[in-house]
Amino acid sequence: MHRHLPEQEDVFPVEPWCLRETALHEPLLPRSESLLALSNGHIGVRGNLDEGEPHGLPGTYLNSVYELRPLPYAEAGYGYPESGQSLIDVTNGKILRLLVDDEPFDVRYGDLISHERVLDFRAGTLTRTAEWRSPADRTVRLTTTRLVSFTHRSILAIEYVVEPVDAAARVVVQSELVANEVLPGPVHDDPRVSSALANPLRSIEHSAAGTSASLLHETKQSGLRVATAMSHLLDAPPGVDVDVRGESFPDLARVTFTAALEPGQRLRLVKLVSYGWSAERSVPALRDQVAAALTGAEQTGWDCLLSDQRSYLDDYWEGAEIELDGDPALQQAVRFALFHVLQSGARAERRPIPAKGLTGPGYDGHCFWDTEAFVLPPLTRTAPGAVADFLRWRYDTLPEARDRARQLRLAGAAFPWRTIDGAECSAYWPAGTAAFHINADIADAVVRYCDATGDVAFEREVGVALLVETARLWRSLGHYDETRGEFRIDGVTGPDEYTAVVDNNVYTNLMAQRNLVAAADVVARYPAEAESLEVTADEAESWRRCAAAVYIPYDDELGVHPQSEGFTKLKVWDFEQTDRDDYPLMLHFPYFDLYRKQVVKQADLVLALHRRGDAFTDEQKARNFAYYEALTVRDSSLSACTQAVMAAEVGHLDLAFAYTAEAAFTDLHDLKSNTGDGLHMASLAGVWVALVDGFGGLRDEAATLRFAPRLPQCLTRLAFTVRHRGHRVRVETDGRSATYSVASDGTETTEELEVFHHGEPVTLTPGEPVSLPVPQVQAPRAPQQPPGRRPLPRRVHDEPHGRPPARAAERGGRSWAALHPELAPREV
Amino acid sequence: MHRHLPEQEDVFPVEPWCLRETALHEPLLPRSESLLALSNGHIGVRGNLDEGEPHGLPGTYLNSVYELRPLPYAEAGYGYPESGQSLIDVTNGKILRLLVDDEPFDVRYGDLISHERVLDFRAGTLTRTAEWRSPADRTVRLTTTRLVSFTHRSILAIEYVVEPVDAAARVVVQSELVANEVLPGPVHDDPRVSSALANPLRSIEHSAAGTSASLLHETKQSGLRVATAMSHLLDAPPGVDVDVRGESFPDLARVTFTAALEPGQRLRLVKLVSYGWSAERSVPALRDQVAAALTGAEQTGWDCLLSDQRSYLDDYWEGAEIELDGDPALQQAVRFALFHVLQSGARAERRPIPAKGLTGPGYDGHCFWDTEAFVLPPLTRTAPGAVADFLRWRYDTLPEARDRARQLRLAGAAFPWRTIDGAECSAYWPAGTAAFHINADIADAVVRYCDATGDVAFEREVGVALLVETARLWRSLGHYDETRGEFRIDGVTGPDEYTAVVDNNVYTNLMAQRNLVAAADVVARYPAEAESLEVTADEAESWRRCAAAVYIPYDDELGVHPQSEGFTKLKVWDFEQTDRDDYPLMLHFPYFDLYRKQVVKQADLVLALHRRGDAFTDEQKARNFAYYEALTVRDSSLSACTQAVMAAEVGHLDLAFAYTAEAAFTDLHDLKSNTGDGLHMASLAGVWVALVDGFGGLRDEAATLRFAPRLPQCLTRLAFTVRHRGHRVRVETDGRSATYSVASDGTETTEELEVFHHGEPVTLTPGEPVSLPVPQVQAPRAPQQPPGRRPLPRRVHDEPHGRPPARAAERGGRSWAALHPELAPREV
Repeated sequence: MHRHLPEQEDVFPVEPWCLRETALHEPLLPRSESLLALSNGHIGVRGNLDEGEPHGLPGTYLNSVYELRPLPYAEAGYGYPESGQSLIDVTNGKILRLLVDDEPFDVRYGDLISHERVLDFRAGTLTRTAEWRSPADRTVRLTTTRLVSFTHRSILAIEYVVEPVDAAARVVVQSELVANEVLPGPVHDDPRVSSALANPLRSIEHSAAGTSASLLHETKQSGLRVATAMSHLLDAPPGVDVDVRGESFPDLARVTFTAALEPGQRLRLVKLVSYGWSAERSVPALRDQVAAALTGAEQTGWDCLLSDQRSYLDDYWEGAEIELDGDPALQQAVRFALFHVLQSGARAERRPIPAKGLTGPGYDGHCFWDTEAFVLPPLTRTAPGAVADFLRWRYDTLPEARDRARQLRLAGAAFPWRTIDGAECSAYWPAGTAAFHINADIADAVVRYCDATGDVAFEREVGVALLVETARLWRSLGHYDETRGEFRIDGVTGPDEYTAVVDNNVYTNLMAQRNLVAAADVVARYPAEAESLEVTADEAESWRRCAAAVYIPYDDELGVHPQSEGFTKLKVWDFEQTDRDDYPLMLHFPYFDLYRKQVVKQADLVLALHRRGDAFTDEQKARNFAYYEALTVRDSSLSACTQAVMAAEVGHLDLAFAYTAEAAFTDLHDLKSNTGDGLHMASLAGVWVALVDGFGGLRDEAATLRFAPRLPQCLTRLAFTVRHRGHRVRVETDGRSATYSVASDGTETTEELEVFHHGEPVTLTPGEPVSLPVPQVQAPRAPQQPPGRRPLPRRVHDEPHGRPPARAAERGGRSWAALHPELAPREV
Repeated sequence: MHRHLPEQEDVFPVEPWCLRETALHEPLLPRSESLLALSNGHIGVRGNLDEGEPHGLPGTYLNSVYELRPLPYAEAGYGYPESGQSLIDVTNGKILRLLVDDEPFDVRYGDLISHERVLDFRAGTLTRTAEWRSPADRTVRLTTTRLVSFTHRSILAIEYVVEPVDAAARVVVQSELVANEVLPGPVHDDPRVSSALANPLRSIEHSAAGTSASLLHETKQSGLRVATAMSHLLDAPPGVDVDVRGESFPDLARVTFTAALEPGQRLRLVKLVSYGWSAERSVPALRDQVAAALTGAEQTGWDCLLSDQRSYLDDYWEGAEIELDGDPALQQAVRFALFHVLQSGARAERRPIPAKGLTGPGYDGHCFWDTEAFVLPPLTRTAPGAVADFLRWRYDTLPEARDRARQLRLAGAAFPWRTIDGAECSAYWPAGTAAFHINADIADAVVRYCDATGDVAFEREVGVALLVETARLWRSLGHYDETRGEFRIDGVTGPDEYTAVVDNNVYTNLMAQRNLVAAADVVARYPAEAESLEVTADEAESWRRCAAAVYIPYDDELGVHPQSEGFTKLKVWDFEQTDRDDYPLMLHFPYFDLYRKQVVKQADLVLALHRRGDAFTDEQKARNFAYYEALTVRDSSLSACTQAVMAAEVGHLDLAFAYTAEAAFTDLHDLKSNTGDGLHMASLAGVWVALVDGFGGLRDEAATLRFAPRLPQCLTRLAFTVRHRGHRVRVETDGRSATYSVASDGTETTEELEVFHHGEPVTLTPGEPVSLPVPQVQAPRAPQQPPGRRPLPRRVHDEPHGRPPARAAERGGRSWAALHPELAPREV
């Protein structure tokens, strides 16, 4: 085991379809645990070693299993949430400890001759191979394969194979379920919060019989019951006697397998773990639920679990693939990203998709607007079922959102800024409750999903209510100024968290406008549902009136849109006097100073240019983009992809590529120095957005696909597929021309489809690809970023797929992150 | 003892020079303990009963003796203060318990035949007379007089006289010092804070000898040592043998006096208690300090303590008296107010004057801008030495203020929004740190004091540094916009706490302007001091340039000043839909909603009209006043007096009178329902401001006194005296004419003085009063207040001084507060 921090490429070589970790480095453990996490959106397991230690952070998560904790306030205020929620580390079913002639297999002791782990994006597995010589000079070879099943939602499965290499050995494998694992460091600065979250599980019952065992627990405050059960399939060489012993305790269940193996003899175990949880269901029901899931998985068997997993992913990749030539590392990063985005939501099924997925405890496991704004767009075009599921979760939390609106003295529904179960958990209202745009983001996600799928049942059952209640919120939150004839939305916070509690944030107002119009449209289509929500014709008409009058501030002198009213009159941040160590700024400057100056943490007006491109002229887009480039420091991971999209649209293709790369490598290169807390799901999803909306030029308002493909110098080819209303539309471009083809998506009849290519309509027919020239444009003058905050220009030689690029050392001796420390701030 | 809540006038009859409590009512205890508190600014004792119980809240305070406590944050941010300070209840030296034939004197048991307490504004004493029949049918008469000496700063003294009435009795008096008293209820919602503040004192030593005893303690976190010592002068009838016994424990020292008395025989004790505290001085030094103070008081003796007290107050009242005819209750309230204002600061001596003085633990005993903005103006004109002392305390905290500015990345000094020792204790920055106007308020107080006194030594030693460092703060906080030629101050909070983090608050900008000019002026006068502060000519010139360019927003359409940029574009609060129970609004609506609407908690732009009247035309004042009247709900006690002043200036004299009365009766009638936590010192001081600046029309910019006396219908005469640069200027008006006279203030030579009467210069010569007619004006149309938020119109018959007005019951059956519940919101 290596104790230094290695070069990226030394550990994770560039390969097209997997992430391979070629050696174990202790400082890399937290990061690699996140990178190698497996999840199906319901169960999430970090890439911890089978034997549990050493670890950066042990992590096993069940979507929405959280504990309540106090939210302390030195000076409280009306409407402040009193308790928060934290995703908890549930019973760890991954543990398989190995003893070789009584010496515990531990990579920190003895000799680790070789160690490799491979996260396979097509197989959906994490495979580990290790050869280890014990301090007593016994060598064993270990091969384990872990999967969290996409097809068996409750199942984690592990194939564990151990084999003595050079001499006979007595091998003991302890397969465990461990509850209330000790987590490293204090759980929270506040001792009360820490105590609420330490040992969050209280045992209800435990049992062991044969090779099976189970633990049932409940959380102390939130009252959730969690059941975990395991069983094993044992495969020993003929003639080898395996002793099996099971035992259980309140926080531990253990099945121990003991065998004497000759060199070359393999002991193979398949461990099946099933998880279930509920706030409602009884202990017997839960007990039966996990037992049934186990039985199902046993009947399926390991090989079938593996092949089902691959089939599921084959289908996904067919509709989600992005191919690019010219940057193999980026190609790998894109697939890594899309794999994790799928994992975050595939089987969440009416539960949230947290900002970190189920890959770590960062942000307390909360779900933010990140999901609607960044994660759902690629899922809408690649795995739309996950989008419907997620939005149904929002729908299920309408009662909480309505209550919150009442508490805030507003109409409709006010969805929480951060939550697990639907209740607001944000303790700092200027950057939480005030960020009402999340409601428009939800509405936008509904509209996009319906446009992309034509899912009328969803629209009727879920869409109408979400659109109506968010429109009502905007109607009551905004203010129709009779004298000015303007609908104004004052005192809210937009996407940029370095500006808060402002009037008429352009992004918020434009998204609210779309929300209001969409609600008015949908109630016209579904009069019965509208009536059940007590929507009158007058009310719908008032939404249209407000939408038509939405006030969008504009600075005539500068010829740009202020991101909120008055923004462009504020003092520009003194970037020249800001040290590189002062980033991220929120860790070194008070909010009051950030809020009152022109400095942008993350795309805000530029996000409006992307999402509401119809509201701006080309000239405005170019001017606005350049203006905000000079102010945007990207202290948030929710920025680079949006900047990539708009850079591409206004013609800065190489800059767009640099931003795309930054989004793509946020976690793989740990650019924010906190990948160990979990992956940045929005940034991962943003890679797709940067490539498809950016270089593909996809815009899909009003159920119409518009493309405008163009390539940066570094890419020689880009191909991608998007799913649209029963079609799979493939776009491929080499930068000079673009070829469009359409095929059936699944069983639906495929008919002609009209799309747009750089503004011109093209009718696509299945089996008849259409090639069109890409209009060439002169690259405009490059905009300036704040000193030290420009993205690293990415220069990549055109290398064949699969071959790693030259090592950083050969290019100049230092890694990318090391060359550009300004790109690696700590994000909080 | 009565257990119902009585009518105000039944308990506190109207008398000119005292507050008399005619009977004891249990529900009134918290309020009367605050109303009857004694203090000299160094020691403060609530009006608790001698025997300690029953009580609303026991309270003994030493200025600046506080404990540190954690400030919890669910989501922390850069620059948030980590610990707060809370004034603590120190060793209680007031306790004198009485046993009559072994039965403890307790007003809750036996028969309380009579009970009266009198706070005498001229004597500076709280006298109590009680006649009580014990359950065993022994009657005693008790007479106690308590004072906190203005002349012996460390001394609390109590004369205690007990006398059997109808039969002989054995009397035991236990005179005590009690540390770590049990306080009722939880100290704080947060259990960690509570535990930090429960039993804050740790014993260092204790002793008892003869009739003397002492306790020494230290605070656990803040490391302050507190010494308390007592001694007694005993006066027993001839032939009566008094047994004396002393004993001490860590938290208790007790001297017990036992005597058998015949009816009519009096046992008289004088208890002297001295207090000392220090963060620096050693235990022996502190021990000696309190012993020396005791010895001094013993030598002075009770009679001399009493007469010194009266002399001190005679001198005060000579320069501070306000007489008015037409409203005896208001006359009493004014004297009550001025007595408490004096008590809050008389001997604070380089220590803060907290928002509640030393009358209760409200606001944690913190000092806010209230002091500079409301308390110092009357003190400047009546007890200027207290002002100099207070501002020297601000000067002493310059190091902390400079550190805070550095932390906030600003130049100069950033004084804390709330503090005891100079460190920022505000945990909610939008209504704390962002309220930078406190720095201009401090500068303004410096200028006012220097103008009023001509105290050159103070100006040189203290004034220059305070003005320079605050000017530097403004220079760095503001932003000179080259293109617009404007000096803008963005992202700050003005006085109105229902609006926060706004750009170009008019009050803030105008006060900063004055601050910048004053700094430039003062460095020109004191070049040596300026040089020691490294002020260059360029720097001073930049202050003038910024001051000249200060941006003052104006709404051309409405013809009024927005209190901050954009304010008048916000939606007006929906007052019609706001229930009376919804006040104070901050307890029923979220900040986000309050901040984004036109609703004003307390005078803000109207305070600018008062303090910077020179910056507005008469027309602007009238229009602005009317505009903000319709928006101001007075959920703060820092509003009525300012509204009174400006109502008077723009001609609404009866409205001004109603606001004056509201300020005057805030505590006497417990209009905010929290007088029990301590008196509203700013509101008390505001009565003076309302009368002198309001009906007297005093404006004193540029060291010139300008008067514009006018009376409301209810007043037939108003006379007041202000001290000004060696003069005492007396103004008396009956509403038709005004008479001005000038006399020497103390030993200084009195020369001619030019003042202004309604804009016309008048030269005053000692001994030659000048009478001038008061120009009569037509009352303009009365402005509207928000529904239910108008002040109660005050109608008073012209009754002779000293006679109480008709009882509320006779006027209509209900008290003022009961008739107008909207005037009695809970203020937090």
